[in-house]
Formats: sequence, C-alpha cells, structure tokens
Amino acid sequence: MKLDFTYIDGGICAAQGYKASGTYCGIKKPANDSPDIKHKNDICLFTSDVPANTAAVYTQNKVKGAPLLVTKANLEKSGNKALAVIANSKNANTCNADGVEKAERMCELVADEMGINTEDVLVASTGVIGQVLPIEPIEAAVPGLVKSLDYGKNLEAATAIMTTDTVKKEFAVEFKIGGTTCRIGGMAKGSGMIHPNMATTLNFITTDCAISAEMLQKALSDIVQITYNCLSIDGDTSTNDMVLLMANGLACNDEITCDGEAYEIFKSALCEVMANLTKMLAKDGEGATKLLVCTCWGAKDVEAARTVAKSVVCSNLLKCAIFGEDANWGRILCAVGYADAEFDINKVDVDITSEFGTIKVCENGAGVDFSEEKAAEILKSDEIAVNVYLNEGERCATAWGCDLTYDYVKINGDYRT
Amino acid sequence: MKLDFTYIDGGICAAQGYKASGTYCGIKKPANDSPDIKHKNDICLFTSDVPANTAAVYTQNKVKGAPLLVTKANLEKSGNKALAVIANSKNANTCNADGVEKAERMCELVADEMGINTEDVLVASTGVIGQVLPIEPIEAAVPGLVKSLDYGKNLEAATAIMTTDTVKKEFAVEFKIGGTTCRIGGMAKGSGMIHPNMATTLNFITTDCAISAEMLQKALSDIVQITYNCLSIDGDTSTNDMVLLMANGLACNDEITCDGEAYEIFKSALCEVMANLTKMLAKDGEGATKLLVCTCWGAKDVEAARTVAKSVVCSNLLKCAIFGEDANWGRILCAVGYADAEFDINKVDVDITSEFGTIKVCENGAGVDFSEEKAAEILKSDEIAVNVYLNEGERCATAWGCDLTYDYVKINGDYRT
Repeated sequence: MKLDFTYIDGGICAAQGYKASGTYCGIKKPANDSPDIKHKNDICLFTSDVPANTAAVYTQNKVKGAPLLVTKANLEKSGNKALAVIANSKNANTCNADGVEKAERMCELVADEMGINTEDVLVASTGVIGQVLPIEPIEAAVPGLVKSLDYGKNLEAATAIMTTDTVKKEFAVEFKIGGTTCRIGGMAKGSGMIHPNMATTLNFITTDCAISAEMLQKALSDIVQITYNCLSIDGDTSTNDMVLLMANGLACNDEITCDGEAYEIFKSALCEVMANLTKMLAKDGEGATKLLVCTCWGAKDVEAARTVAKSVVCSNLLKCAIFGEDANWGRILCAVGYADAEFDINKVDVDITSEFGTIKVCENGAGVDFSEEKAAEILKSDEIAVNVYLNEGERCATAWGCDLTYDYVKINGDYRT
Repeated sequence: MKLDFTYIDGGICAAQGYKASGTYCGIKKPANDSPDIKHKNDICLFTSDVPANTAAVYTQNKVKGAPLLVTKANLEKSGNKALAVIANSKNANTCNADGVEKAERMCELVADEMGINTEDVLVASTGVIGQVLPIEPIEAAVPGLVKSLDYGKNLEAATAIMTTDTVKKEFAVEFKIGGTTCRIGGMAKGSGMIHPNMATTLNFITTDCAISAEMLQKALSDIVQITYNCLSIDGDTSTNDMVLLMANGLACNDEITCDGEAYEIFKSALCEVMANLTKMLAKDGEGATKLLVCTCWGAKDVEAARTVAKSVVCSNLLKCAIFGEDANWGRILCAVGYADAEFDINKVDVDITSEFGTIKVCENGAGVDFSEEKAAEILKSDEIAVNVYLNEGERCATAWGCDLTYDYVKINGDYRT
C-alpha cells in the first residue's frame, strides 16, 4: 500500500466545512502583564457545517475536569455527533464545586447563539486547576465568537488554547481515498503536565473524510497509543487531557465502515497528523530547549519497546544532561535498566544521534570509547535522538520528550500568578 | 510496648566494636577544582571487631553496579557474615567491562592488608556510571585506611561517601533490650538518582545488638519498605543503591532469633534510624531548598496510602510550586488523581502544614477558600508537609521528597565534569 500525503496549511480548518474563531474575553491576564503568556486569545469556537461523527479520548486521571464530563455526556446524548466545540485557556474548570454547571453553561451559550441543540456542543478548558471559572466574560464573548466564525480562522483558535506554549501547534495533510481527496487537520496545546497514560492535553482534529463513528473511535484509540501516549514532558498526567476527532463526511468518499484499505489509509493519515502534533508538543515542552526522541529497537514485542523508550525520555537526570549537552550515557542505561520490561541488559547497545552525526556510547551493556568532542558536537543540535537496541527481536517503538531546564522550574515555580 | 530511644552521636561507630577511616585517594578531583563537591574524602573503610551478621538490600534496576554483584557474592560465600566494608565515591564502577574484577580487587586489597578472608569484605561505589575505575589510587590508599582505623572516625567515612551531598548524613540511637543497652547507627549518601522501588543510594548501618542473620534481613527488608522505598528525589532509580546492615552482637543481649518483644524493639529502633536517614536524604536532595513530606491518611490499606503519598512527592509540577512557595494545590490533587490506587476522589481532603501553621486547601475533592497570605507564610518554611485524607479507612503512610530547583538542573546538566 503506497501512502501519499501532502502537507497542507489550515489546521482545524484544513478539511472542508470547518469554521473557527477566537478572541480575548478576559480569563487570561492582558498579555503585557504576563510575559509568559505569548498570545492573548483565551477562548475559541470551531464548528462543522454538518453534524460530524466524533470520537474522543480522555485523561485516565481520577480527577477529571468538569469540561470532560460534560463533553462525554453530550456525546452520549447525541450518539457521538457534534457541531461545535468551545474551548478556553488559563482556567481548567477542574475541582470546582460549580464546574459542571459552568461547563454546561458554556455549551448552552453556544447552542442558543447558533440555534442548535446543547448536546451538539462540546467543551474543553485548560489552565489552572481549582480556580472558579468566571462565566461572565464567556457569556459576553460567545455572540462575537459565533458571528466571526470563518473557514480560514484556524490560527485564531490555535492561539486561544495556548497557555505556557511558546508556539501554536497545527498540522494538516491531504490524501486520497479511492480517488477522492480527503483532509485531516489538527491543533494542540501543551506544554506542561504532559505524560503517558492519557490522551494528552487538548488536541482537536477535524476531517472531511466519511467514516463511521465506530471506526473513527477505533482509529483514534489505536493511534493515541503510539503517539500522545508516548509523550512525556514532566511525568504529570493532566486532569483535563482530551483528544476530540470530528469527521463530517464532506469529502464524499464512500463511508469507511470496516477494516480494509480505505481504513488503513485514513489511519495512516491520522497517525501522520497526530505524530507530528506529538513532536511539536514535545519540542515545546515547558522550558524546553531540545526535543528528545528515544526509539527502542529489536524488542521482542511493541510493549517492551514502548516501555523502554518512555523510560528514557522520562528520566529527569538524562533530561538535565541533554540540556547541559553532556553525553552522560550511563543515565540512558540506568533508565533502560529500571524500565518495567523483560530483556537482557547485557545485550543492549545505545547510540546518540542528531543532524550532526551519530555516536555509539554503549555496547553489550558496557561503555565503549568514544570521542567526547564528537559527542559534544552532536549534542549541540536541538533535536537529539537516543537509539536503544535490545537485540532480542524485531519490534520497535518511539517516545518523545524534551530536556529539563531552568525555565521549566521558573515557569512552574509560580504558574498561578 | 514502650519505646524508649536516646539519640546519640557516632554514626556507624556508635555501636560497640566498629572502627572507621576515610581519606582522599584521588578519584574525586581536588575540592577546590570542583565547587559542587563539598568534601574531599573519596574512599572509606569500616570494620567490625568480630564477624557481624550482615543483611543487605539492593537496587531493583536491571543495571547493577559491579560492587553490588561482588558484595552479594561475598555474602553468599561467607554465610552472611562480614568484617569490613570499603566504599568509594565519584565513580560508580558500573557498566564497565572490568567492573567486577576491580570490585573484587578492592575487597582483596583490604583482606590482604587486614589478614582476613576476601569474602568477609564487602564493597560499594557511588558516582558516575560507565567510567573506568582507577584502581591505582585505591591500591595506594588501602594500607593507610587500615592503619588509621579507629572507633571515633565515623565522620571520616560519612564524608567520603558524599558526592553532590551538601551535608553528611548520620544518625544513631541507643535503646534497651531486656535491660541490655544496644545501639544502632548509620550513615547514608544521596542526593540525586533516588526513587522508590529500591533500597536507596548507599546506606550503611551497624549495630551491636545480637540478632540472627535471618531476623536481621527480615527487619531490614520490612523497614526499607516504609523508609527508603518511600523516598524520591528525582524519579531515577540508581544502579548502585544498596543498604548494608551489620550486627556484631557485642552488646551481649540474648540473641534475637524469632519474633517477639525483643525483635519489635530492635525493629522500632532500626526504623527510627532509617526514617531519620531517609528524611536527611530527602532534605538534601540535589538542589533542594525544602523537604517535602506527604502523609496519606484514612486509606483502606497501607499500599494505597503509600502509592498516593509517593505520587505526591514525585510530582515535578508540585515540586516546582513548593520551590516557588506557590500554594498550587490543584497539582496535589492532580498527583493524587493519577496515583495507581482505588479510592473515591470526591472524598479527598488536603491540607498544607509547616511550623508556621496549617491550611486546608481542598475538601471533598474541590477547592475551598483559603488565605493566600497565610498559605504564603506556611510555605516559607524549609519543611513542608502535605496531608492527604482519603476518608475511606484507617491506614496511613508517609513519603519523603524535596522541591525541584534551578540548582537540580545545574548540578545535573554537567555532572560528569
């Protein structure tokens, strides 16, 4: 099967029939009062012109943000259909006694203004946990958000979900299913409290591909395992993580309702979008200066490979060494060694690779002589790959993370103010 | 049962019949070249006047330092008896092709010099992983170490095992078993690469209590669970973690060979020593400015309580907030929420406590109004307690950690040089 994608612009508006809008309503402090907040938009709306099949994945944290509960309930009521999503940043609306009421109110405001049913509106929030969400600014903003909805306004939405993110995160691809052109586009926000065992922080993906709600959910749940669930910024699993995937069918391909080539093509395209968003999230981790990618090769099974790769990108000590551009490979082997998987540590090889070259640092579980100068050169790159070879089988997996820096501490030492 | 301990000085020399010595042999850089290394001693020896029953706990990392393998083998050969322990810092002698050979050589050097059997000597190393251990400086140092052994030289040993530790860690107690005075003393080194699922980094404990090797191992294994295994500095489980506990019987109490009151007293005293060393390790975590202690109360079982308490002290986000003296309690609840234990998150209460007062921040899983001024005052302390109440049962557990600071990043960004 030949996979042929074209990367395109447009984020969540790349696919046919999706409009967006975003604005500043006053939940965030004004941008010039808060230098860590790079964009002032704090609320956005996006819609599908026709009801879209919608799949979702939620955090596995026991503490679940009120917006997740309301979104889940609305999808149940609507039979996994949605027309609109409203999302705010700077306040997670989580651990508040009136959280569900406020989240429901957000859906109701959009539904009333658009003249649609409340259960067709989904809601997401990201930001500080446990602060009461001010509803007045949202009530004041919704009419304007609805009025200014447009097909090209993906950027307004993509910046409105940013918290400590330094760059907006959008990715979209175009591909063909049976001669019909389809598109998948998405946007995501990071950049702290990100860890495996979840979806990840807010991710919204839209497609015009025609696909049943069941197959859509199946594709999303599968791809989450090898993308967002292999991402770690700081080991903290957020309370508000959610991925929403909407498919409105406007590309008019034959609806995908079962396994087969069309489904495989769709899934590959979705993986392309989600893997690229995952990489963007990792690279823009709070305070990060470098992307850290670990691929574990030669594992007996994918689970073992994933466990090892995740263990490496989660090591605080290695993350500090990467920041310091120090080829402290012993910390890689240490993290491999405490990964909860079965393999022979005495067969493990490790190399460190970047655009500037590759260097083997460990063979058969023991150090090998290498040039510290060459290692220093390789570590100057802002994208560092660590390859771990278990030499036991044929399976592999990749995990994404970033370095641990002074700025991570700074950002999180005083996040609420 | 009335437990009556007296805190005493003397560390590993507090109990009868233990001598120690320490010196600088040249594995560490001279102290004035390396400002992060606070003490220049890099090698130490300690001995028991008579063969001591010895219990041990080792790291669960698959990568095990060569000294651990040799110590384990020697204890097997000697039937869990030991006369001497040699330990060095700055080089872990781990992941080296010649690691076992060098660790055996260290034991042999001591044995030859003292005229004892090699299997009666144990060995430990801590420091950088994967750098070849220079044996020449150790060969040169051993005769002097043996010659200068003395009963009061615990401090020479306690400083020789320090790496990035800023303070030496010693603790000792005196207590009575059936009218006989016994002592337990110990020393430990931190201060990074410390995480549950292990013993902890190097810990040496000596006692003059008469107790069988079996009961000694049982006591050590039990107490490790509620002390060192509830400690986390950075989530990284070291390759060289080891606790050695020696009991030489010179107090001449009736030997403890089974469960009963004498054993319970011994275990309590051991727990007192190990819990205090754990607290010292946490407080002196790499870069730490504050001790973070979480106690989980009202759990259905101890495992759930321990899982929750550990999860809280391991949260990078909370650790940054504690450093920043920010009462970001949402991060506490978030960490409680992703702990792998079963309980109802909607019944959870949380307070934050220090010498400056206590403040309730969460009730029934939701935020409560509190004075930010009072919270800021409480968080000024260098010992912060977080209390999590599950309100489901009668069991509790404590975990120890520290804040995450700029200095942690600094120390670990360039540890090898």
